[in-house]
This record gives sequence, C-alpha cells and structure tokens, in this order.
Amino acid sequence: MLYAECLSVSADNHLMIGSHDAVALAKEYGTPLYVLDEDQMRRNCREYRQTLADCYAGESMALFASKALCTLHTARVAAEEGLGADAVSGGEVYTLLKAGFPMEKVFFHGNCKTPEEIALAMDAGVGFFVVDNREELDRVNAIAGEKGVVQKILFRVKPGVDCHTHEYIKTGQIDSKFGVALETGEALEIHRRAAGLPNVRVEGVHCHIGSQIFEIEPFCEAIHRMMALMAELRDSLGMRTRILNLGGGFGIRYDAKDDPPLLADYIRRVADTVKSEAERLALPLPCLMFEPGRAIVGNAGVTLYTVGSVKTIPGIRTYVAVDGGMADNPRYILYGAKHPALIADRAGDAPEGSVTIAGKCCESGDLIAEDVPLPRAKAGDILAVLVTGAYHYSMASNYNRLPRPAMVALRGNEKKVIVRRETYDDLISHDVP
Amino acid sequence: MLYAECLSVSADNHLMIGSHDAVALAKEYGTPLYVLDEDQMRRNCREYRQTLADCYAGESMALFASKALCTLHTARVAAEEGLGADAVSGGEVYTLLKAGFPMEKVFFHGNCKTPEEIALAMDAGVGFFVVDNREELDRVNAIAGEKGVVQKILFRVKPGVDCHTHEYIKTGQIDSKFGVALETGEALEIHRRAAGLPNVRVEGVHCHIGSQIFEIEPFCEAIHRMMALMAELRDSLGMRTRILNLGGGFGIRYDAKDDPPLLADYIRRVADTVKSEAERLALPLPCLMFEPGRAIVGNAGVTLYTVGSVKTIPGIRTYVAVDGGMADNPRYILYGAKHPALIADRAGDAPEGSVTIAGKCCESGDLIAEDVPLPRAKAGDILAVLVTGAYHYSMASNYNRLPRPAMVALRGNEKKVIVRRETYDDLISHDVP
Repeated sequence: MLYAECLSVSADNHLMIGSHDAVALAKEYGTPLYVLDEDQMRRNCREYRQTLADCYAGESMALFASKALCTLHTARVAAEEGLGADAVSGGEVYTLLKAGFPMEKVFFHGNCKTPEEIALAMDAGVGFFVVDNREELDRVNAIAGEKGVVQKILFRVKPGVDCHTHEYIKTGQIDSKFGVALETGEALEIHRRAAGLPNVRVEGVHCHIGSQIFEIEPFCEAIHRMMALMAELRDSLGMRTRILNLGGGFGIRYDAKDDPPLLADYIRRVADTVKSEAERLALPLPCLMFEPGRAIVGNAGVTLYTVGSVKTIPGIRTYVAVDGGMADNPRYILYGAKHPALIADRAGDAPEGSVTIAGKCCESGDLIAEDVPLPRAKAGDILAVLVTGAYHYSMASNYNRLPRPAMVALRGNEKKVIVRRETYDDLISHDVP
Repeated sequence: MLYAECLSVSADNHLMIGSHDAVALAKEYGTPLYVLDEDQMRRNCREYRQTLADCYAGESMALFASKALCTLHTARVAAEEGLGADAVSGGEVYTLLKAGFPMEKVFFHGNCKTPEEIALAMDAGVGFFVVDNREELDRVNAIAGEKGVVQKILFRVKPGVDCHTHEYIKTGQIDSKFGVALETGEALEIHRRAAGLPNVRVEGVHCHIGSQIFEIEPFCEAIHRMMALMAELRDSLGMRTRILNLGGGFGIRYDAKDDPPLLADYIRRVADTVKSEAERLALPLPCLMFEPGRAIVGNAGVTLYTVGSVKTIPGIRTYVAVDGGMADNPRYILYGAKHPALIADRAGDAPEGSVTIAGKCCESGDLIAEDVPLPRAKAGDILAVLVTGAYHYSMASNYNRLPRPAMVALRGNEKKVIVRRETYDDLISHDVP
C-alpha cells in the first residue's frame, strides 16, 4: 500500500507516480524535486464534491485551503474542479487573483489582517471575510465604507471543542489566538456589534477545530455548538446566517499506523448531524462548507532526493543523507511529522533495516524521518518521500541558502514544471550590495 | 539592560537602535522590518579578533558562520573586519563569491555536499573543505583531480563531548549525522585514507560540539581530545596538522535569565588549554579558529512589527497579534527560543503584565514569544523583538505567502536597505501558469 492511488511499482522495480517513472523524473529535472500528481489532486477534489453532493441535501462547497500549497497552477486546478478557496494573506489572495480564480468563492482568513491586505482583498472582489476579532471588524467596516461596498463576513468562532492532535495545531479551544469564544458570550457580542455596522453583512458562522483529526465526534460536537449559535443569533438578534463553515482538519494517512476514517463516513456523519440539528432548531439547512487543504494535495505529492552518503554508526543507527532537508521539508523538525519513504530505484524491495534520513542542512535536528524501513541505500539512489503535497513547498525556506526545488505536475502522460527551481542568482536577487 | 550596546531609550521614550529611532524606521520602511545595527556587528567582529590576539600567542582566525545571516552586505562587513567565513552550501559559497569575499579564507562545510557544490566551491577558490565522510572524501579527491588541483581539507570530527543545550543543536556526540567519530577509530581511519589520496591535503582538524553553550568546560574537553588526535595523526601517520578549528557554539544572551560567560574568559580558557596541551604533546601552537555566527550578528538584529490586535482571554492570557510571525521568525515554533520584546513607542515604560505575542500565520503554534512582560499594547504600536540578527532572515520562509521583510543596516547616522522587501509579484515569480 503506497498511500495514494497514484503510486505503484513498475515492472523494473521503480516507483511510478501516475504513469511516470520517478527515477526518470529525478534524472530529467534534478533533485530535490517536488512532484505533484495532478490527477490525484483532481480525484481528491472530486471526491470531496461528490461525497458532499451525495450525502447532504442542502447547498455545499469545499474550499481548497491555499496555505497547504499555493501556486498559480494548483489554484487553477482547484477552480476547474469546482472548489472554492480559502486564503490567509494578501499574498494568497494575490495568487488566486492572478490565477483567475473566481474571487466570489474565496474566503479570506487570518488573525491579523493588515489594512493593506483588507483593501487588496476587497479590491480583488473576495467573496467573504472570516473576521477574527473586534478591531478587525471595525477595520473591515471602515475600509468597506471608504470603498462604498458592503462586505460579506463570517466570524471565526472558537467552539470550545477539544480534539486529540498535536498541540500546535489544536485551535478550537478557548486558549487560542484565533477567533471569538462561544462560551464567554464574546461570539454573541461581536455579532451584535456587526449587526449595527453599515458596511458588513454577516452571512454565516465559521469554526476550525484543529488539524489532522482522526475522530468524527469532535466535528459533530462543533456542529451542535455552532448551530446553537446560529439559532441564538436568529432568536436574540434576528440575524439569519446561511453558511456553516466547519473549516478543515480532516486527517490523512502519513504513517502505516495512521487510520483515518473514510471521507464518506466523515461527511455522512457531519451531514446527518447538520440535518438533525437544523430540524431540532427549526433552522433551514445551511450551506455546508469545508476547508480541506492536506486532504486535497497531501497524498498527491512526492519529494525526490538523491542520496549523498550513508553513514552507519555501529550499535546506534544508520544515517542516509540526502540533498535536501528542513529547508524544503520543515515538517519533521517542526512537528515530528512522519512521512513514508522508499528508494525509488528499488521500490519493491523488502526493507533490510530501519534508517534515519538526514537532510543536508547544517543543523543536527535537520532530519527528514527516523526509523524508516528501507532496503540498503547507497550514494546516488533516488529517495522518495511520500505524502508531501501539503505544507512542504508552502513552508519551504532558503535556510543555508538552499535554492527551493522545482515542482513538476503530472497529468496522464503529460508533465509540466509548475514552479521553477530557484537559482543561486535568485538567492541574492534581493540583496542590495 | 537592553541586550546590546546598540539599544537605548530616547528622551521621548522610543527605542533607539544606534542613533536611529525604531518607530521612525518602522514608519519609513514599513513592517515587519529587520534592522541590523552594523556598528554592533562590527564591534562583535572586532571583539573576537582582538580577544584572540590578546589571549593567544599563535596564529588565529574567527570565521563568520554565514548561515546565521547570509547576505552580500554582511559578507562584506565580515571581510572588512578581517574575519574568514564558513559556508555550508553552494548558495552560501556563491553569495560570498559575489560579495567579493577573500575565498581563500572560506571553509566549506556540510554533511551532504553535492558534486555540483564541490565543483562550484573549487572553481570559486574556496580555501578549505571541511570533509564530512568517506564518500565525500573520495568525491572531493576525484573532482580536485579532474580540475588538476590539490584541495586543502580538514575532517569534521565528532569528539564525543556532551554539552547542555537544546537537543536539536547538540552535535558533538557520536549519534550525529555530522562527521567521523573519534572514539571508534573512524577519525584515524579516514585520515589514513586521505594521506594516500593525491588531490587532497589535510591541513587541520575540525569539530563543533553544539550551539548556545554557556559552559566553557565542554570546549576544553573537546580541545583535549582534538589535540590528542593531532598528536596521534603525527605519531601514527606522520601527518602534520596546523589548524585547530573548534567550530561555533559560544552562547549569547537571549533572555534575562541567560548568563553566558564573557567572551574574554571563554577565549582565555580555550587559549590556555590549547597552549598547555601543545606543550604536553610537543605540538607547535596550532592556528586556532572559531566559527561564531550568532555571536557576531545575534544582538545586532531587531525585528520591528506593527500590532494588529490585542485579545484578552479572561483568566487565561492576552494575545498581542503582530503583522509577522513564524515565516520571518521560526525560532519559537522550532526551538521554543526566547526573545526579549518591547513596545518601541513606549520603550521605557514599566510592564503591566505578561502577554503572548502571536504571529499572523494561520497556525496556532505561530507564536513569537510567551510570558513577555509588556506595558499595555494597542493596535498600531510598534513591537520590537530583540536579538534577532541570527537565524531569522536566514531561516525565513514564505509560509502563508507572506513576503519576506526588508532589512535595513544602520551605521552611524547612515541607514541603508541591504535586503529589499519581497513583493507579491516576487511570490509568484517562479510559478509557471
């Protein structure tokens, strides 16, 4: 099992990504190389859309969380597949705009939007602002007023739901930098304030309870609380909210031990819960939204490296060093994130032991993975790290002045560079001598 | 005490960096903004050089560790102050070359140098390669052979010294991706192999026991072991090594509780230890080298942000959100690194409580500091985070598609942009539509 439909092993024992030989891709484009199986990304988009349509009687939309992988090309793919998008900065809004994305389907997030970003997003015609706090509400209202528009908004609400995931990405609890709290009355209060402002119109409610969640129950709990808020807004303020945006957080499989629920089971439970709550609270079925990022591009990505050396420390471990590292994949040093890996030249071979994959950055913590079962590796092998479509390129740095890798997208028999490899001249292009 | 000689508070209660008002800098250049006090950097360079000259009778050189802050301008400053440099990648070698750095004073590090990087560094005339492993030794010898040169090298040796610091940056112990181990005989063995190769010449030994070390003893222990190796190389292989490069790792003050030793005390102890070991082992006084990075630029850097919102969660904490975050300063989320901060507009005011400084990235873990004593903050204030000269710009990413900030260098009354702020167009400049 290779974590994604797009991965297989060829007759000559090479890793295949779609119909493309990974070793040949490494040779053609050089390493490190980000590979995106566009067909896999499109399948992931369609699965979200179709499952929502199948399971939920009301209106629905999946929004691609740009921050997982924000490029002109991936924005276009998401648009072609009928998804909306969420953007978290002026840079992401700008990218979507330049990609020709339908901006009315864009939700603009962020806990500290600057006035310039707010103005840019309004000028770009962003559909919805997900407003984080009262200062921002006033700022959005004021800037909308200057522009003579009424901006559609939702508030980011902390529903107070706990969920079992890495502490860094647990965001629904009250102690979070994001949003307004339900339990303290802060959420009701900010809606009351918004109701009195002339240049914003509240269209729905938003929450995001965390990332990489493998349980469905916390989402159902969030729905109970968020729909109770929708009822309260109607009853207390006469405010009709039509959108229920549940954010992202649906977990994907990174590790052999990971066992996320099926998307269909997740969506069905969520849809059923929304329906029964709507009936109970006498609310119309809301427009149901999700913001998947990782689930759209995670398993569509593979990073290819060349092995530079193999260092066995007797009795301790073997380090397999590759020509990339924390600059192109910071997720291990940041979160201890586990990614499967294999030797693309001998993809079907049985492991001969476990190794540590070390990056080339001058930092001991620059590892890509530990305890990875691999066949014996040697210098010159192509090492493939799997499930790297999300939060790799988008988090990449030039640490150690390493140029960021190219990204090549695969679609059927076609392949196309969608992000050019950085050059040494790029690295100094902002330096003023 | 504001962590660096360059910092003070003006008569109108603003933070001053050298002779420049931080609030005025923020206004002129926008935020986030990296500020580098070039005079402070030059003082730090001179202190290293002068202290070495004062304390050590033999030849000596401090090498600026480029990875802490690699720009054309800082490379030139280091060169002007008489420092050598270490480089850890082709990109850093290229930057030094383009800066006009005297390449014979450059040491090229890295655990996984690619053949292209090796060739680039030789063509650039890099003085010394710090060779990590046997595969690399053979590669360096072969490429030098093709070019018809004899490359001066040192090996990176793991002296097996433990030191009390963050696990991620503890590098002298045997379980490290870097170098060859002393205690297993691996170090002796690789020197033996090098002695038989025609296109490399071993000029010295190198070790690096970790980063942010506040104790002098581990350095002395490393000297004992490394000079014993130098004696063994002489006795067993007839190999004369003239350089003892002790790497970096001397800690600097980030936090009020930090109490690093004085540089003069550190250098004196090290110099005395080298001298007595040389006498004991009948070795000539080696050329003594250090590779400070953080100690050269750390306290010369300040990052200026604008406060976007202040969110008080009753009974829990107050979040002060600013217009940057883990994209420009990943050290808190990576290492839990503590940086002092103050409100530049009211720099001398007494704190009114402790706050959490939150970044603007869409990630709960995106914090810049916790438990920071600050006067009451409000939207629009300029927040200064101190001691950010090292490993901030060099580790910055475009996560969330945030453009990387500009950097302005201050020298006397002069100021100069040394790194241009990225634009939104820069962000998409590598995207192929």
